[in-house]
Amino acid sequence: MRLSELTARISGEGADAWITHYEALAARERGADVIVLSVGDPDLDTPKEVVERAIEQLRAGDTHYAPAAGRLPLRMAIARAHAARSGQDTHPDQVVCLAGAQNALFAASLCLAGPGDEVMTLEPMYPTYPATLEVSGARMVRVPSASGFRPDLAALERLISPRTRALFWATPNNPSGAILEEAELEAIAALARRHDLWIVSDEVYAGLAPGGRVPSLAARLPEQVVTVSSLSKTHAMTGWRAGWLIAPREVARHVEALAMCMLFGLPGFIQEAAIVALANAAAAEQQIREYCRVKLQRFLGGLQSIPTLRAVEPQAGMFMLVDVSATGLNGYQFMRALYEAEGVSVLDGAAFGKCTQQYIRICFAAEDAAIDGACLRMGRFCEHPRLARGARG
Amino acid sequence: MRLSELTARISGEGADAWITHYEALAARERGADVIVLSVGDPDLDTPKEVVERAIEQLRAGDTHYAPAAGRLPLRMAIARAHAARSGQDTHPDQVVCLAGAQNALFAASLCLAGPGDEVMTLEPMYPTYPATLEVSGARMVRVPSASGFRPDLAALERLISPRTRALFWATPNNPSGAILEEAELEAIAALARRHDLWIVSDEVYAGLAPGGRVPSLAARLPEQVVTVSSLSKTHAMTGWRAGWLIAPREVARHVEALAMCMLFGLPGFIQEAAIVALANAAAAEQQIREYCRVKLQRFLGGLQSIPTLRAVEPQAGMFMLVDVSATGLNGYQFMRALYEAEGVSVLDGAAFGKCTQQYIRICFAAEDAAIDGACLRMGRFCEHPRLARGARG
Repeated sequence: MRLSELTARISGEGADAWITHYEALAARERGADVIVLSVGDPDLDTPKEVVERAIEQLRAGDTHYAPAAGRLPLRMAIARAHAARSGQDTHPDQVVCLAGAQNALFAASLCLAGPGDEVMTLEPMYPTYPATLEVSGARMVRVPSASGFRPDLAALERLISPRTRALFWATPNNPSGAILEEAELEAIAALARRHDLWIVSDEVYAGLAPGGRVPSLAARLPEQVVTVSSLSKTHAMTGWRAGWLIAPREVARHVEALAMCMLFGLPGFIQEAAIVALANAAAAEQQIREYCRVKLQRFLGGLQSIPTLRAVEPQAGMFMLVDVSATGLNGYQFMRALYEAEGVSVLDGAAFGKCTQQYIRICFAAEDAAIDGACLRMGRFCEHPRLARGARG
Repeated sequence: MRLSELTARISGEGADAWITHYEALAARERGADVIVLSVGDPDLDTPKEVVERAIEQLRAGDTHYAPAAGRLPLRMAIARAHAARSGQDTHPDQVVCLAGAQNALFAASLCLAGPGDEVMTLEPMYPTYPATLEVSGARMVRVPSASGFRPDLAALERLISPRTRALFWATPNNPSGAILEEAELEAIAALARRHDLWIVSDEVYAGLAPGGRVPSLAARLPEQVVTVSSLSKTHAMTGWRAGWLIAPREVARHVEALAMCMLFGLPGFIQEAAIVALANAAAAEQQIREYCRVKLQRFLGGLQSIPTLRAVEPQAGMFMLVDVSATGLNGYQFMRALYEAEGVSVLDGAAFGKCTQQYIRICFAAEDAAIDGACLRMGRFCEHPRLARGARG
C-alpha cells in the first residue's frame, strides 16, 4: 500500500535526537537514577490562578465547541500583548489561536509555501523545523551560522533564489539562545522587501529575553511578518498546547480556514485559562527570567571546573550549548556515552544542524540538585570520556 | 505577497454553510430569542467523573509535555475499545491520539494521498470533508448517493481510476444518519482489495448506533483500514478535542511523525480524563443513545403536523435531514428565511453535497423546549414560506 510523499518528508533524522531522552524518561519511570536535561520543560507548576480558571470553566460546562480561530477575548488579549511587545498595531482579526507554537509554525508553513518553493531557516534550528517546513512540499534551505551562532547574512543573501518564499527563525534561538539584533534584522528586512519574502518569527522564548522582549520586524513589515508564540515557556504551560500566530489579515483568514479542518478550535476551558495567563504575563515572565538567570549561573559555575567542556553563555532562554570537542567525542557520542556512564540525558547538538555537531544542548532550567548532580557526573565522565557501545554516529 | 496553493484548496464553499449558525450564536449571545439546531453539540455536560479526573490532574501538575502519539495507557484503552467494537486485533502501536476526529481525518488525509492522487468520498458528507481531503493536494471525487442516501456502489466502481488512493466515509453518516451495511461493505472491500485502496472510516457516531457499534471492515482489511473516532459525541466532549485514529502500524508511525510537527501531544490532563471516559463508555453511550431516541421521537412527532416537510428518519446519530422542497424553497433559501422569520437556525443541506440541496439538517439532540418551539415556529413558517431578503442562492 502506497503512502503519500509527504510521509517521507516528515520522518527525518530529527527523531533520532530524542532517543536518549526517551530512554531516560523510561528509566526515570522505572525508578532509575537519571538526570534529564534534554528537554525544555522545567519542573515548574503552571501558575495557580491559571489552573483554577481552567477548573472553574470545566465545572461550569465550558466543554463545548469553541470558534476555530479562538474566542474574541483571547484574541484581543493576544493582540494587546503582541502590540505591547513588538510595537505592531494589532487587530484581533490578525490572531489565530492554535495548539501550541509548533502547531502555529505548521499552519504558517502550509499556508505560505508549497511544492516548488524554497523556505529558508537559520542554523542552528529546533529539530522539528525540517519536518515542519517541508511538510508543505517546499524545500528547506539552511542558512549557516557565522561565529558565535550569529546568522551569516552574506550566506543568507546568496542562498535566496527566485523560488524562495519565506524565512523562518526563532529569536531567542533554540538551542543557542542568540537574539537577532537590530542591525541583523534591518539587513534581513531589506532582503525581505526586495524579494517579497514572508518572515515567520518564532518568539516562544521572547518573554525570557531581557525585558521580556526581542527586536522584531513586525511593526516595520506588518504585511510580511508572521509572529508565532505560546504560553508554554513563559507560564510553564508546555502541556496545555496553547499557542497562536499573528499575521496579516489575509494570512490569518487562511490559517483560520486551515484550523477548521485541522483542529476545530482549542478547548474553551484552555482558552479562558490562557486569558488569565496573559493578564498576569509580566509577573510570570519576570519570575521565569529570574529563575533562568539563577539556574544558568549555577550551571556555569559547575561547568567551570571541567576543563574539556566549553559552555556558550546564551543571551536568553533555558538552554545552553556546550562544546565537547576537547573530550575527543562529538555531540552524539558524548550524549550516548554520558548517558550510559552516568545517566545524565542531554541532547546531541547535531539535532540542530551541522554547526552544532561538536556540541551538546543542556536545559539548565532544572532543580538545583539536578544541576549539581549533572555537573558532578559530567566532571567525572570527562576525566575518562569513552565511546558508548554502538555510538560511532 | 503570494500564498501557497493549499490556501485555495481549503477555503471552499463549506464555510458559507455556517453563516446562519454563527449569526444565531451571536444573536443568542446578545440575548435574542433564537433556537440553534444547526450544530451537533447538545447541551449535555461531560460526565462528572471525567471532568473531575481532569481537575485532579491539573492540580497535580500534569501540565508538562506528553508523548506525541499519546500515553500508553490511553492508547491501550483505545485499542481495547476498538477491538471490542470492530473485532480487529489491535495493538497500542496502531493508535495515535489526536486533537479530535477532525484532526485525525486531517492527518490521515496528509499521510495517505497527495498531489496527482484522487480520494473518494460518499455523498452526503460533512462540510469539512472537501478541505480536509484536498489539503494534501489530492483531488476529491464525490460518489453520489442512491435512493435513501445509500452509497451508489455502481457509481463508486465507475469512479475508481488508476489515481484513486483512498475512500473516506462516515458511518453513521452525518447528515443522513445512514449506517453502511454488511453487503455494502463487502462490495466495497472487494474493490478496495482489487485497487489497493485505503479506507478511512470516520466512526465518531458509532457509539450512537444501535448496540453502540457499526459494521466495520477493520477486522477484514486490517492492512488497508484506518478508523477514526473521538469522545466528542458519545461523552458530550466536543470541546475537549480528544480523538484518535487506529491504523496499520506503518501508517500509525507516519501519523505519529506528523503529530510531532503538527501538535506535539495532547494535554496530559485531557488524556487522563479520556482514559476515565473510555472506562465508562458503555454507560455513557447507552445514555446518549436513549437521549437521542427520545428526542428524535419528539421531533418527528412535532414535524408530523407540517405537511410540507418530510423528515428522513436516521438510523443513528443526532441529526435528521428534512426535505423542504414542497415549500417551494431549497435548503439554503429555507435556512435563511426560517432564521429571518422565526429565529430558528438549521443547516442548509447543500453544505453536505448536491443530493441534499432540497433538504435542511436539524440537530434534534436539544432541550425539549427547543424542540417544541422549533416545531411550532417551523409550522408557522411553512404556512407562508417566503424567501428571505438576499436568499436566492
